[in-house]
Amino acid sequence: MEKETGRIEAFSDGVFSIGVTLLVLELHIPELKNGENPTQLLQELQLQWPGYIAFIISFFSIFIIWVNHHKIFKQIYKRNTGLMFANGLILFLVSLVSYPSALLARFFLSDSRQLSVTIYTGLFVLINLAFNLLWEQASRDKRLLRPGISNKAIRQLRNNYLYGFPTYLAAFILSFFYPDFALVICVLLWIFWAVSSRKINFTEVSDLI
Amino acid sequence: MEKETGRIEAFSDGVFSIGVTLLVLELHIPELKNGENPTQLLQELQLQWPGYIAFIISFFSIFIIWVNHHKIFKQIYKRNTGLMFANGLILFLVSLVSYPSALLARFFLSDSRQLSVTIYTGLFVLINLAFNLLWEQASRDKRLLRPGISNKAIRQLRNNYLYGFPTYLAAFILSFFYPDFALVICVLLWIFWAVSSRKINFTEVSDLI
Amino acid sequence: MEKETGRIEAFSDGVFSIGVTLLVLELHIPELKNGENPTQLLQELQLQWPGYIAFIISFFSIFIIWVNHHKIFKQIYKRNTGLMFANGLILFLVSLVSYPSALLARFFLSDSRQLSVTIYTGLFVLINLAFNLLWEQASRDKRLLRPGISNKAIRQLRNNYLYGFPTYLAAFILSFFYPDFALVICVLLWIFWAVSSRKINFTEVSDLI
Amino acid sequence: MEKETGRIEAFSDGVFSIGVTLLVLELHIPELKNGENPTQLLQELQLQWPGYIAFIISFFSIFIIWVNHHKIFKQIYKRNTGLMFANGLILFLVSLVSYPSALLARFFLSDSRQLSVTIYTGLFVLINLAFNLLWEQASRDKRLLRPGISNKAIRQLRNNYLYGFPTYLAAFILSFFYPDFALVICVLLWIFWAVSSRKINFTEVSDLI
Repeated sequence: MEKETGRIEAFSDGVFSIGVTLLVLELHIPELKNGENPTQLLQELQLQWPGYIAFIISFFSIFIIWVNHHKIFKQIYKRNTGLMFANGLILFLVSLVSYPSALLARFFLSDSRQLSVTIYTGLFVLINLAFNLLWEQASRDKRLLRPGISNKAIRQLRNNYLYGFPTYLAAFILSFFYPDFALVICVLLWIFWAVSSRKINFTEVSDLI
Repeated sequence: MEKETGRIEAFSDGVFSIGVTLLVLELHIPELKNGENPTQLLQELQLQWPGYIAFIISFFSIFIIWVNHHKIFKQIYKRNTGLMFANGLILFLVSLVSYPSALLARFFLSDSRQLSVTIYTGLFVLINLAFNLLWEQASRDKRLLRPGISNKAIRQLRNNYLYGFPTYLAAFILSFFYPDFALVICVLLWIFWAVSSRKINFTEVSDLI
Repeated sequence: MEKETGRIEAFSDGVFSIGVTLLVLELHIPELKNGENPTQLLQELQLQWPGYIAFIISFFSIFIIWVNHHKIFKQIYKRNTGLMFANGLILFLVSLVSYPSALLARFFLSDSRQLSVTIYTGLFVLINLAFNLLWEQASRDKRLLRPGISNKAIRQLRNNYLYGFPTYLAAFILSFFYPDFALVICVLLWIFWAVSSRKINFTEVSDLI
Repeated sequence: MEKETGRIEAFSDGVFSIGVTLLVLELHIPELKNGENPTQLLQELQLQWPGYIAFIISFFSIFIIWVNHHKIFKQIYKRNTGLMFANGLILFLVSLVSYPSALLARFFLSDSRQLSVTIYTGLFVLINLAFNLLWEQASRDKRLLRPGISNKAIRQLRNNYLYGFPTYLAAFILSFFYPDFALVICVLLWIFWAVSSRKINFTEVSDLI
């Protein structure tokens, strides 16, 4: 059976790669008011550290979302309207990432730190929900899936995205009280993902997003 | 017969995915004049709601245009110069979308609301016309089309784009008198599209753009 | 013989489609100083007409460059270092287009009109030279080309790019004395291209860039 | 054996082509304070020469990185998590290039010249390290590689990236004392690359990044 999702993947890859590359536009060249000497410049660059952190977290979050998108679409061979729109929702949320990321960079050192982290983690809760929706749409009709996919693999994929939900929700709720800790959870999720996926066969999907 | 439109689709997918992702650059980080406390920030973020609406409408409009482009090119196997330029016209108009979208976001809460909605809906009238032109160019010479495509399918596709025209035109005309209602029509068109296309076989194209 | 230029074309398509889509970022939202009424906005939008002209000319220029790139690479099956770098030079110049285009938009109504048109047309002379270089690199070693390509087709392609050179050079020289007329030549070149290529078989390449 | 790295290459090509095209956004339209006459404009454009140099060096650096990525992935047929993340690291660093490039353009004519060159060359040291990591991940498990690849070719590729390291490190260290000379080394590396790769068979990879 021929795979018919080529252009969906091409369009999605476009959105992911642009989303990831536009993040750099949120790093600003410092305006030096007291002379252009290197001490001044270095100081200003150091003061922008929340921007670098936001850039790194956002880049690798989108990258991991792309890896998961890649995995999920390896199992999908046909598409219907529900699938198209679930995928559109993921792309919509991914194309948004650079905005909360810029808010985080701008307000992390201000009184609005908590609010900016809450908005940021809230977006990742929505992205997790959209992935759940995508897999729900795809696995509902087995004719859309790779022929010969096992029920176990379908269940595993569903569980991964389902288990991701409470973790992201926990980060979101924590952000109201301990914003820094909420961000740490986001980073720990990558490490967990990277380590756990090393052990398993890549074609047997079982990672958190 | 081999499909020869691979690079046209790749280039078009590039323009669509960038067009959709650049929209986020029109969301601006609020400048807080009276302190950086969260109440202030939240208030400023809320005041930007027309920007969020414009982002959502523009994103899903381009997304639906891409879905339609995808569908139409599933039926096209060869290209000629007329087809290349009709497609170029669509891409030109799509690459423009973020500008009227930014106008809408900026002036929706001002006296210029009506003007900005009129410009916005006017662009979608032109996009509909360009789709009519594309299908006219493609269906004129049956050698360009998928071998074995039925006359009924060709007619259906033409009708879809033709029927879209009065709807978009109505939104455009309405925008002079009831700008909000004109925007609502644009959104209703998606819902109509999503619902109607769920019922039909995806390979038998019959949606509004 | 297998075509080995897939990733070169994919990368080039990326640059072309981004180059074409970034142009819209040079259209600016008017800042209204005397109220936000529609008359004011409309007036400001009308005053930006050189920006619209620059956008249109630049968009379709890059589009036509892409069409030509597409045609030339249909004849190329293998690559060597010379070819990679000639292609890199084309992409470099194309990625630059939005800058002279923005200069043109900004200074067309000032005393610097002539200078901005000269820079703009000068870039297209360079792009024409880069296309000549690309085809020279490709056609030098027939093993790089599509098997069975006729000597006549090779000659035709070379002539097209060679004949383009004096035309672009003429536009460049004219720009010193009659800048408006130089821009008109650029537009006429498209029309010539579109009309002439309608008559000929698309696979027998014979258009101006 | 089927190649399974298609989407990794597509995503990477997206990041490379966007990274290369966004560079133009760092070229700014001059603001003319004393009239808009051409002499003034020309003078201001000339004063921006560090921006042009930075644009050229960054463009061709990313281009050469892409060429090397292209070469290395011609030898890779399967992927595992380590490979995915080594590739992600390369893309992360490449998506960053425009920021140090903008710093270089902005501060090259100030007292901070040395600092900006040091940051710039430092990034290329990291990119070289990431390439070493990628090839280390890929060549560790021969099942990931093109079937029939010779041990000699594997060793040659490793040596190329290893030999690149001291050169980039030398440029980085030199940048503290002779920043201009450090930039010259970066450019010389391209010329070396271009000349040396002309002589060898393209499929037998042996270039510096």
